Amino acid sequence: MIAVDLIRKKRDGGALDRPEIDYFIRGVTTGSVPDYQASALLMAILLRGMSPEETAALTDAMVRSGVRMTYPDLDGVPVDKHSTGGVGDKTSLILAPLVAACGGSVPMMSGRGLGHTGGTLDKLEAIPGFRTALSLDELRVALRTVGCAMLGQTSEIAPADKKLYALRDVTGTVESIPLICASIMSKKIAEGIGGLVLDVKTGGGAFMKTRADSKRLATALVEIGTSSGVRTEALITAMDAPLGRMVGNSLEVIESIETLKGNGPADLESLSVLLAARMLIAAGLERDEMRAEQRIRDAIRSGSGLEKFRAIVEHQGGDPRVVDDYRRLPAASDRLELPATTAGYVTALQAELVGRAAVCLGAGRAKLDDVVDPGVGIEVLAPVGTAVQKGAPVLRAHHRAGRGLDDARVLLEQAIQIGADRPERMPLIVERIA
Amino acid sequence: MIAVDLIRKKRDGGALDRPEIDYFIRGVTTGSVPDYQASALLMAILLRGMSPEETAALTDAMVRSGVRMTYPDLDGVPVDKHSTGGVGDKTSLILAPLVAACGGSVPMMSGRGLGHTGGTLDKLEAIPGFRTALSLDELRVALRTVGCAMLGQTSEIAPADKKLYALRDVTGTVESIPLICASIMSKKIAEGIGGLVLDVKTGGGAFMKTRADSKRLATALVEIGTSSGVRTEALITAMDAPLGRMVGNSLEVIESIETLKGNGPADLESLSVLLAARMLIAAGLERDEMRAEQRIRDAIRSGSGLEKFRAIVEHQGGDPRVVDDYRRLPAASDRLELPATTAGYVTALQAELVGRAAVCLGAGRAKLDDVVDPGVGIEVLAPVGTAVQKGAPVLRAHHRAGRGLDDARVLLEQAIQIGADRPERMPLIVERIA
Repeated sequence: MIAVDLIRKKRDGGALDRPEIDYFIRGVTTGSVPDYQASALLMAILLRGMSPEETAALTDAMVRSGVRMTYPDLDGVPVDKHSTGGVGDKTSLILAPLVAACGGSVPMMSGRGLGHTGGTLDKLEAIPGFRTALSLDELRVALRTVGCAMLGQTSEIAPADKKLYALRDVTGTVESIPLICASIMSKKIAEGIGGLVLDVKTGGGAFMKTRADSKRLATALVEIGTSSGVRTEALITAMDAPLGRMVGNSLEVIESIETLKGNGPADLESLSVLLAARMLIAAGLERDEMRAEQRIRDAIRSGSGLEKFRAIVEHQGGDPRVVDDYRRLPAASDRLELPATTAGYVTALQAELVGRAAVCLGAGRAKLDDVVDPGVGIEVLAPVGTAVQKGAPVLRAHHRAGRGLDDARVLLEQAIQIGADRPERMPLIVERIA
Repeated sequence: MIAVDLIRKKRDGGALDRPEIDYFIRGVTTGSVPDYQASALLMAILLRGMSPEETAALTDAMVRSGVRMTYPDLDGVPVDKHSTGGVGDKTSLILAPLVAACGGSVPMMSGRGLGHTGGTLDKLEAIPGFRTALSLDELRVALRTVGCAMLGQTSEIAPADKKLYALRDVTGTVESIPLICASIMSKKIAEGIGGLVLDVKTGGGAFMKTRADSKRLATALVEIGTSSGVRTEALITAMDAPLGRMVGNSLEVIESIETLKGNGPADLESLSVLLAARMLIAAGLERDEMRAEQRIRDAIRSGSGLEKFRAIVEHQGGDPRVVDDYRRLPAASDRLELPATTAGYVTALQAELVGRAAVCLGAGRAKLDDVVDPGVGIEVLAPVGTAVQKGAPVLRAHHRAGRGLDDARVLLEQAIQIGADRPERMPLIVERIA
């Protein structure tokens, strides 16, 4: 088998078989297939597509490029959630402790922010001392003792994905449903989970802008998970405005803790509870959705979710006192408020622009090696639907001595839309795919 | 400008503008655009295509990646011929001295054999001492003194093409008309010629198998040449069976010299005379085709073409005595004859299979660094249309102690087709595009 024949086959619209896909992924992992051949094949896949069978074979080969975790000492079915990325989406920090508090095991491997969307690891690392670089042994211990670990992808998990993702980023081959599917699902399957809830975002602040594209992606993801023996379902959820009121790492940690205390904004709490309830069902801990949701709400009311969060922080080397004292989190003390330029209703707060503004301030990365400032971010003072007077503050930027503020301000001014009529309330959950 | 944006634009079906194409070609030449980005863009170009304007801009950028030759001390218009590659196609060795003998200037940069087709440089190098690696200064001197030079592409001529061609070969991105056009025409334009005759092969032994594809390629090539100020025309010619009777380097040198002596096979002599006559017209030395052909035929009859060949060989360090004594050429003394398996007419000698058989024997390269054996090859004893008895020899392999003979034999047996009816004579010249 030689790589150029595979490239030509896909280029001409053919389907690659399992041995061919295995050869390619093994070659990428060992380096025997050079980057320039890999990128040509990636472009051919993007433009020619892949059948469900090819996508499943690709995912499987990527799983087998590293280890597939097992947890022989656990009784239950480990579960996880994955979001395709949004602005202000801190549900992971809320639902992982809630599910663990209800008896679930959550081995949660997350990513960093890139582009306009935030990343769970960056948020957790706003907590002084919090260590996300756990080994697989540490993951096992955490699951046994705390019931949850929140960590980064280790080098043993789907190493082929790591190489391919870096290459896709610089060769214009990110936006391919088969490649996205294989990348997401190979990591999740390798985690060793038995149940997975996917939050596929749709709308202006999402990676997939249209509902049709989001549905195609969700369907493909569920198909792969199911065929790999992982009980998988997907919710397609709205990502037009930021989720909750806070965007930025320390700010989102605070909002997550507030939600665990029962004080979260309605949209964030609803979505977190719903996703957590679906995880309980995926773990086989509940069968009925109403009962599952009630159990999660009880974990908020009783404070058991908050205590689990504190335990996770402590177990992973973080300062658990942040739960009671937000001043222990890094903060940027400078503020700029963005006012309404006219009276009316806030009809839109464009999530992508808010996310990009947060990156300008230092909350995210323009390049992979940029350093994140955990203290900066954007606060939503007047969410979509609020009636405002001219000059009333709509957004508040938390900045550090004006760094990136000029660019951020332009983006935020564009993000705010005011209209004469109260906007229709759009549903948060658009569709469920199982 | 960043490379990934260009890749994404072409991937999504957009047209690249001149600054973008210049950026890409400059990046390929200097190495600032890495191979993995170049190959992704090449695949996107292959699958999405390029407009005539983009192809012209690409060609132009590739010309400007190196030097564009000029010949201030020459009176006439330098002319060249380019063939898209065939089996047994040794017309370059015949027409270059004929055109030079008629007063033309022929700065002929050629390539090596790759795949099943032969290369002019390999044929010339069968002549002991013949040096094809001339510098541009040596090219100038040769044109002034001999009127013709036959050499390889130098590093100053279209260096971007050299890099891209090597990359296309291993990334499945060879078969793209815009990329083929830019590759061929950038080298020819950089040679500094004012007239160009293209021999676009069509049929089973050609790179383009169908007449429609050959016509599209020919039209695109002529368009680029014309828009770059080079008087360009294309002939689409048949490449189903080998051209002439000899395939292999020494064998083709012998057949070329025989043709210059007036003893060549009809198909080879006709095509050589026609192409040479068109070159005289492209050079402005003749206006009427009949007169141009007559002038070329006179150069054969008088022996002036043969004497020019001798002068070229001598000027480039080769042994001119080969013209009179073919034993001075390397030869493989072992023979195997392939007989007709039934009585009838030879209806086909499939050129691609004959070419591949010659490569098996060592006449060409499977990989770029393979060493060519000039002595081996295939001789056609019974060309298409010949009536043969069962057992009569059709092809003769010249091999070296059986090297590659088993594989070659299988291919040659497949190549020979015998039928009950005399085959229709197909025209050698299919179409002219100007």
